[in-house]
Amino acid sequence: MSDQIHSEVMPELKPLIKGIDHIGIAVFDLEQAISQYRTIWGAEVAHQEYIEKDRVNEALVAVGGSYLQFLSPADPSSPVAKFLERRGEGIHHIGYRVDNCSYAVGVLKAAGMRLIDEAPRPGSRGTTIAFVHPASANGMLIELVEE
Amino acid sequence: MSDQIHSEVMPELKPLIKGIDHIGIAVFDLEQAISQYRTIWGAEVAHQEYIEKDRVNEALVAVGGSYLQFLSPADPSSPVAKFLERRGEGIHHIGYRVDNCSYAVGVLKAAGMRLIDEAPRPGSRGTTIAFVHPASANGMLIELVEE
Repeated sequence: MSDQIHSEVMPELKPLIKGIDHIGIAVFDLEQAISQYRTIWGAEVAHQEYIEKDRVNEALVAVGGSYLQFLSPADPSSPVAKFLERRGEGIHHIGYRVDNCSYAVGVLKAAGMRLIDEAPRPGSRGTTIAFVHPASANGMLIELVEE
Repeated sequence: MSDQIHSEVMPELKPLIKGIDHIGIAVFDLEQAISQYRTIWGAEVAHQEYIEKDRVNEALVAVGGSYLQFLSPADPSSPVAKFLERRGEGIHHIGYRVDNCSYAVGVLKAAGMRLIDEAPRPGSRGTTIAFVHPASANGMLIELVEE
């Protein structure tokens, strides 16, 4: 079935994933993570933002062409606060860079994959994003990111 | 302390991390993962290998300049089998690409970080690797990878 969907939806076998956009990491202390990456790993912050929707503070640390996205809850009702409470610090999700988020969502839906966002929505730093459910992605929470 | 270590060990502030080498993902069925990425995501296998030490089958799927490294246990005594039993499918570790694994291990040790491998050792596809303990890395299991 997947082969058929692929040939119908992506007749040119165009890769959906351009590369790893970011690794989302839940942390208790954003400043500690930033400081560690600066002083030990020699990596710098490229962007910081407060994401209102998720009540989370984000710091993007540049590593090659990708980012480490450190996420720290701004209040206890944040989904990241619940993640930290349940599992402690660690990887929260992976961001795949795509050319066209809407197109990618269409392909994944046509393939029967379960999406958390049925349609693309605004992400941080002006991106367009959509989350794919871990049940359709080998237990990984995947974020599609169009820059 | 970290600032001092950094200036002593890395006076030129040279970044240790060149980029994301791979995302290591534990899966039950390697062929299912490969097939899904080929037919839905349009991504191809770049390398496959049986890693004797860990009794694990590896498939590297190329995404931009990085890899998705799918890992499936070859027998029930494999560490990946235990991971799957305990947590199900999901992200097992992250590989950071470095210029010189031995140098990176030296910097991290000097900074007081806990390493799983005290010295670099051979990895798959002819790489030189060392694992950093999650306790020193915001709950992430990190693999340093020198190609």
